[in-house]
Amino acid sequence: MQRSDPSSGELPRLAAGLLVQLRERSPRVHCITNVVAQNFTANVLLSAGCVPSMTISPEEVAQFVTRADALLINLGTFDRERREAIEIAVAAAADNRISWMVDPVLIDRSASRADFARQLIARGPKAVRLNGAEFMTLSGRGAEAEAVADYARGHGCVVARSGAADFVSDGGRHATIANGHPLMAKVTAMGCAGSALIAACLAVEPNAYIAAAAGLLLLGIAGELAAQNAKGPGSLAVGIVDALHALDGTTIMKQARIS
Amino acid sequence: MQRSDPSSGELPRLAAGLLVQLRERSPRVHCITNVVAQNFTANVLLSAGCVPSMTISPEEVAQFVTRADALLINLGTFDRERREAIEIAVAAAADNRISWMVDPVLIDRSASRADFARQLIARGPKAVRLNGAEFMTLSGRGAEAEAVADYARGHGCVVARSGAADFVSDGGRHATIANGHPLMAKVTAMGCAGSALIAACLAVEPNAYIAAAAGLLLLGIAGELAAQNAKGPGSLAVGIVDALHALDGTTIMKQARIS
Amino acid sequence: MQRSDPSSGELPRLAAGLLVQLRERSPRVHCITNVVAQNFTANVLLSAGCVPSMTISPEEVAQFVTRADALLINLGTFDRERREAIEIAVAAAADNRISWMVDPVLIDRSASRADFARQLIARGPKAVRLNGAEFMTLSGRGAEAEAVADYARGHGCVVARSGAADFVSDGGRHATIANGHPLMAKVTAMGCAGSALIAACLAVEPNAYIAAAAGLLLLGIAGELAAQNAKGPGSLAVGIVDALHALDGTTIMKQARIS
Repeated sequence: MQRSDPSSGELPRLAAGLLVQLRERSPRVHCITNVVAQNFTANVLLSAGCVPSMTISPEEVAQFVTRADALLINLGTFDRERREAIEIAVAAAADNRISWMVDPVLIDRSASRADFARQLIARGPKAVRLNGAEFMTLSGRGAEAEAVADYARGHGCVVARSGAADFVSDGGRHATIANGHPLMAKVTAMGCAGSALIAACLAVEPNAYIAAAAGLLLLGIAGELAAQNAKGPGSLAVGIVDALHALDGTTIMKQARIS
Repeated sequence: MQRSDPSSGELPRLAAGLLVQLRERSPRVHCITNVVAQNFTANVLLSAGCVPSMTISPEEVAQFVTRADALLINLGTFDRERREAIEIAVAAAADNRISWMVDPVLIDRSASRADFARQLIARGPKAVRLNGAEFMTLSGRGAEAEAVADYARGHGCVVARSGAADFVSDGGRHATIANGHPLMAKVTAMGCAGSALIAACLAVEPNAYIAAAAGLLLLGIAGELAAQNAKGPGSLAVGIVDALHALDGTTIMKQARIS
Repeated sequence: MQRSDPSSGELPRLAAGLLVQLRERSPRVHCITNVVAQNFTANVLLSAGCVPSMTISPEEVAQFVTRADALLINLGTFDRERREAIEIAVAAAADNRISWMVDPVLIDRSASRADFARQLIARGPKAVRLNGAEFMTLSGRGAEAEAVADYARGHGCVVARSGAADFVSDGGRHATIANGHPLMAKVTAMGCAGSALIAACLAVEPNAYIAAAAGLLLLGIAGELAAQNAKGPGSLAVGIVDALHALDGTTIMKQARIS
């Protein structure tokens, strides 16, 4: 395993720059995501400056993707129409060189979902965000740094593994993000929100390693800030949306704990 | 373009009266709406005094619509089962003379959705609520007042065009509603909430022009009040539901900015 | 009708014990529930200590149910794929002796949904939670205590009827829970949240009578506590999630009003 690249120290500044770009450019992020996460995901993206769209209709998803700046595929709801839409959406993204990423939600609980995720990742997403259990299912190995880096290198995509600390690797460089708050694990779709922010960053940043680290950094810092005033997971979720909307570069530089 | 009818000044009082009726009569509003908006829409309707229902099952939607006081068709999720349900629901509304309205979400992004919206509007909804980009797609013209009035007159329905200021026209009369707050644009499904409140008012008010103006006025005022204490779009959304529940006629009369 | 069993007085202590178990064991609760309720239900379950899952995909639902500790079937969204998933899920629960329960949402509004609910209840759920109108549709009788007890006895399952006061019966014992707050009726999916908490308790308590009473008690107390600081239904919903997360045995014992 390589040592942490010095450029980890650059990531907070780069993330701050991406947030400025999101607000200036209002990129479109198309999300094929799960029903539980849709509302929170849309509000997280709006708060970061993006314009989300969420259709799963096979008839129209290609039109949405073609005009989007990034595409998020989240497998948390795994119905037939969504799977059909995913096929079309990924093809449209590939044809139009639009960055896309995968969040293989709960593949550790469903073999058919895991198979689908593997086939999807073989088609060339720029990034995959997942938790440790999901990574172990995907890779057939443990979720430690070396395994993540190997998987990223082998599949030519950035892997962002969420956890008590988040770990991002493109197979060469890697970064560990220690931001966030334990209460975030008690809010549904929080992982999905991290994926959405990575997709947001991919809409303005071609380097998926930077985009993935920045997306998780934004969420981690917003979560920490929101936790200061939250009375529990309900107010934490509301506060994260507020915090993302208020977040600025100075705060990012001050709060970031990346190594 | 006709000048603003003097009766614009009557609208705040009429809206206040409709809110009283909603609370006294607890009308049923059936919504075929998008997945992102469903929870917020239901809570907005409950806060205004209504009883929402949201089934999209073709087997049962006619039963729900037949016993409802108004029907909202929102195209934000455009899956096959919803389209089938919409056909049945609109037929049931027509057969039972139940007021119904259309929110053609994002038709500017999808040709098939725009076609569907045009066919739907040809079937005689009492109102259409949409934003400027959606109106331009629908009408093939700009979104200025005269184009909106022409469209309303030509299609025999009230058009409510949301924006920095909302504009409502039945082809003859028109009203501009300057209430609301910029942060509302950062909350997903806020336009859908406006449509839901128009549908709520249609449940107790046969005059669609009054219902449309009142619905958007209620939301705009609730948004302004909520913005006073909101820390961002997350707490704004929560606060709008609270504000709608607490809203009274005195506040409506005092806050309304209609011309 | 039998008189209230003295063991009603034991229920607060038993509920407090179940809450400790939920937090220690983090049971999995699979929910096939309606789209409006999914996000709130997931957050309520997480706040109580559970790990929710919500897939409705027929291909994978059996895998989820087989590894779950309880199953909730909520009929609030009644689409084809969900009905297919319900068949598979109930069979998987039966095969693996996993406790399951039914929330027959709005069967008073739809004959096909009522038929489906009756067939489902014939297959042996441990509990049914519903409101008075739904109970009357199900039983063809009034919703008073004796009718509820008769239904529970006749169908061999616990019935939890929500209302201004909740009533729980297994046909022999019964309990009336006077906790809760009127504003809870203005939040969508609040009944669904009660069912979810019953399912949570079923995951750690084989006695469905205790589980049903405990689930509704937890929600009622959380609702009362949240109402103390709520400014309306929006902040009430957020506050209930916070309150469930903070709830402890001392508070349950102090606040419970069961007879």
